[in-house]
Amino acid sequence: MQGDLRGDEPLSGYGLLVGDLIGVAVFAASGASAAIAKRLDLFGVAFVGFVAALGGGILRDLVIGSVPPLAFADWRYAVTAVTTSVAVFWLHPQLSRLRRTVLLLDAAGLGLFTVTGTLKALNAGVPPVGACLVGMLTAIGGGLARDLLTGEIPVVLQRDIYAVASLCGAILVTILHAAGLAGPIPTVAAAVLITGVRLLALRRRWSAPVAVP
Amino acid sequence: MQGDLRGDEPLSGYGLLVGDLIGVAVFAASGASAAIAKRLDLFGVAFVGFVAALGGGILRDLVIGSVPPLAFADWRYAVTAVTTSVAVFWLHPQLSRLRRTVLLLDAAGLGLFTVTGTLKALNAGVPPVGACLVGMLTAIGGGLARDLLTGEIPVVLQRDIYAVASLCGAILVTILHAAGLAGPIPTVAAAVLITGVRLLALRRRWSAPVAVP
Amino acid sequence: MQGDLRGDEPLSGYGLLVGDLIGVAVFAASGASAAIAKRLDLFGVAFVGFVAALGGGILRDLVIGSVPPLAFADWRYAVTAVTTSVAVFWLHPQLSRLRRTVLLLDAAGLGLFTVTGTLKALNAGVPPVGACLVGMLTAIGGGLARDLLTGEIPVVLQRDIYAVASLCGAILVTILHAAGLAGPIPTVAAAVLITGVRLLALRRRWSAPVAVP
Repeated sequence: MQGDLRGDEPLSGYGLLVGDLIGVAVFAASGASAAIAKRLDLFGVAFVGFVAALGGGILRDLVIGSVPPLAFADWRYAVTAVTTSVAVFWLHPQLSRLRRTVLLLDAAGLGLFTVTGTLKALNAGVPPVGACLVGMLTAIGGGLARDLLTGEIPVVLQRDIYAVASLCGAILVTILHAAGLAGPIPTVAAAVLITGVRLLALRRRWSAPVAVP
Repeated sequence: MQGDLRGDEPLSGYGLLVGDLIGVAVFAASGASAAIAKRLDLFGVAFVGFVAALGGGILRDLVIGSVPPLAFADWRYAVTAVTTSVAVFWLHPQLSRLRRTVLLLDAAGLGLFTVTGTLKALNAGVPPVGACLVGMLTAIGGGLARDLLTGEIPVVLQRDIYAVASLCGAILVTILHAAGLAGPIPTVAAAVLITGVRLLALRRRWSAPVAVP
Repeated sequence: MQGDLRGDEPLSGYGLLVGDLIGVAVFAASGASAAIAKRLDLFGVAFVGFVAALGGGILRDLVIGSVPPLAFADWRYAVTAVTTSVAVFWLHPQLSRLRRTVLLLDAAGLGLFTVTGTLKALNAGVPPVGACLVGMLTAIGGGLARDLLTGEIPVVLQRDIYAVASLCGAILVTILHAAGLAGPIPTVAAAVLITGVRLLALRRRWSAPVAVP
């Protein structure tokens, strides 16, 4: 039994890390692409990539009092973000052909970051409503910071079902957690669900309403 | 005596909560209005409303080390901000007639947030000068974040006596606190004074000087 | 021996404070100048000066969990930043003749803030890669915030060798620290080196590459 747990935990921890780093790489690529489009230099591209990938997690860790934030405490996060950004800097002409792949990975990152952010907040003792908000901010915070750094009104506030998919997923994770069901399989399912809703919203061009002028 | 205190504290605590939530609602309305003017979608309106209402308090709580910040720890804050923002989203055509009321409530929010922010900083052990700054940041931080999210140079930096009224009030509260006079009546008086100065500045069109070019 | 240490520590502490406050004054002047150019009022000039001078250090202290941040805990920082900003507000027509001096002092501030930021992060237990990033963010964070508040894409992301000089210096300080050589003389030398590289980059017009469109 104990052996089972011991055998399980590192695996799920390792899986979580790999998932997290994939999310970091994808969000770094989105930040780097935005920075290249604004003609920023190599440092600017790496910096915006770093912030897009890790800004949400830094905000989460500050809010739940986990300092220094993971982005500074574990070198693999920063190295993944910066390496990806520099690779995008050199390879970006080829990347335009990968637009669909990037949107798919971005949706996966949204799901992963929402779930890990919500669970970390709940485990740090944040009450349910706050934990849902922290989970969503973990997922959308990096994109918000990316847009502010490149002089844009954040795209997440303007159109599409993006943050709403994240928020619904955070609520689902919080309910699962309250019911004692936040094991690996249900949480992975929640991440997949968020990703699926996001992809469906993209395909069907779902978007949130805009106020009548 | 003890009974008196017991009878008094919940009342003043309840009064403080009601005052705080009125401030949250007013600042959320200002954020939602700015977001609607920028044609953001319903999520964007709710998000900018949330940040305008609670951004200053989140910054305050991070600075004084009170984590998770109240905005995430007490669901009534987030629910008040989001409900108000959604209401403004649907009702905003009628709100233009309420412009005077909104300015009045905004001045009241400025006074309330300054006083509660300054007192919380002092009680957390922040020295006087820092506590005044934290009090002012509590009151103007949300508006700053609202303007950054909607792509504007913060209006509080450009004209009007707004932040200065807050800063003077924060200094007054700090002096009262140092003199051991920071009871309910003096602090409410300080909030009223800030609100009054702000309204007077609006009516008389007082504004801070701009540098000679 | 003990007497030696006692005699040494206040001196080096005092030297560090003076160096820090010079950096604060210089960065406040850069923020105030940017605010004046945007026609902000006196409060806006003082506020942007404060943020440009102390924003990087506030971010550093939040990330390493040192609350309240030094900018709020020690009144000399805020007073230096605000006094300098107000002086620039009144004297700015004469300052244009001081452009070279300001660039020199700004490079000195970059060196000082990088070194103190990196050392504080290391002493707070942040691992090497994270400490380098925190050191660089201490030095460039204020300028980033200044540009965001005045509605510009941060200049540090666009051209010049500025952040890169800071990052290389932070790496050097981290290596010295790991080798047990982070005494006063090597760290001052690192600060001078960062300043020198920055000045050389200015003179030779070195800049980071921009991606091929």
